[in-house]
Amino acid sequence: MNRSQRGLAGAGEWPALQALLPDFEGKTMVDLGCGYGWHCRYASDHGARQVIGVDLSAKMLTQARSLTHANNISYRQGDLATVTFPGQRFDLVFSSLALHYLPSFDQVLSQIEQYLQPGGQFIFSVEHPLFTASGQQDWIYRADGVIDHFPVDRYFDEGPREVTFLGTTMTKYHRTLTTYLETLLAHGFQIEHVVEPQPPQALLDQPGMRDEFRRPMMLLISARLPVTCC
Amino acid sequence: MNRSQRGLAGAGEWPALQALLPDFEGKTMVDLGCGYGWHCRYASDHGARQVIGVDLSAKMLTQARSLTHANNISYRQGDLATVTFPGQRFDLVFSSLALHYLPSFDQVLSQIEQYLQPGGQFIFSVEHPLFTASGQQDWIYRADGVIDHFPVDRYFDEGPREVTFLGTTMTKYHRTLTTYLETLLAHGFQIEHVVEPQPPQALLDQPGMRDEFRRPMMLLISARLPVTCC
Repeated sequence: MNRSQRGLAGAGEWPALQALLPDFEGKTMVDLGCGYGWHCRYASDHGARQVIGVDLSAKMLTQARSLTHANNISYRQGDLATVTFPGQRFDLVFSSLALHYLPSFDQVLSQIEQYLQPGGQFIFSVEHPLFTASGQQDWIYRADGVIDHFPVDRYFDEGPREVTFLGTTMTKYHRTLTTYLETLLAHGFQIEHVVEPQPPQALLDQPGMRDEFRRPMMLLISARLPVTCC
Repeated sequence: MNRSQRGLAGAGEWPALQALLPDFEGKTMVDLGCGYGWHCRYASDHGARQVIGVDLSAKMLTQARSLTHANNISYRQGDLATVTFPGQRFDLVFSSLALHYLPSFDQVLSQIEQYLQPGGQFIFSVEHPLFTASGQQDWIYRADGVIDHFPVDRYFDEGPREVTFLGTTMTKYHRTLTTYLETLLAHGFQIEHVVEPQPPQALLDQPGMRDEFRRPMMLLISARLPVTCC
């Protein structure tokens, strides 16, 4: 996959996600679903004081460790929905394209509240609810093979979708936009940004990239836990 | 149209919208695109002190006036994007299914900022960006006439869509979810609720209503202008 091989530069949504990230100088961060650790290294390279990457996959973490030389980054194998950091609170909880693998958004937020610093940010990307709704995750094509449109179905039917990609079947969880935003608000988060990224100019020559103007594929959200006041 | 004839009870999204409305007791409200005045009368019936309904259509306003007997409701013909209320600020600016007829959301927000009380709410419904994107606003049917799915296309191509409904062609403006939310945030609004209403139980026996679980058709947003502090 392009994003695994090329890292951040291979991810179409990276410029839009990067624009949401804070000044990392002196900050601490947890990366939920860190994969090969690209975002952990980015945070460390930009001044983060401490970074912990969490992933369920031992294989991913082995690769992440082999790519990482900064000693302020550590990796931990764990379930994103239940991982805890007793006695620690972080300035930023980050997650890239991982939370749609969890059955409950409410559950992971309940955990994040325990280890996110009041005043801290929770910034994440997920596959867009429009993209995950039908479970098909592919265009509808005309008889001549040209893309006609993207199908939406079962939008309010939240739950698992068995998705096959490059011969592998994975279970993703479809949630509505309402669920993402209202659950954040119910947990007391302030919404700071909600962005559906468009393909960056630099990648427009890649196959199929221009079609990404026709549907939103990803959803980026930045939210802040208020400092309890006065 | 069901919603014009039956009023609020005929609008599938009404229970979800109603749940976002504040206690009206003693409050002042502007209704942008008031149509027949159903929401103006609801606010007045629930204790609002003063209600002003604005609509571009003189015909709609004639009907609204004939249906209205409360003397704390007044109607004004005007362009929703540019209407002003010099020297007045309101507790609530409300708009039901009207703002997708305006070319610029940024422009109407600039105006609303002038007449919304700091600490006041802006609550509105629009057609969902997923629903307005392709311009088709109809399902894709199978050969046997059964609904197959809903089509999305041209999502990031914001602008006018010529839509024909019951033989009349109207121009609506497609905007992305990003534009609705980021424009509110850029104007300093706090997002309080973002709801994609599902069909209410009471209307499930109406033709086609069960299919409304398959796609989001409307978007309800509640936002608040912060009280400038200290």
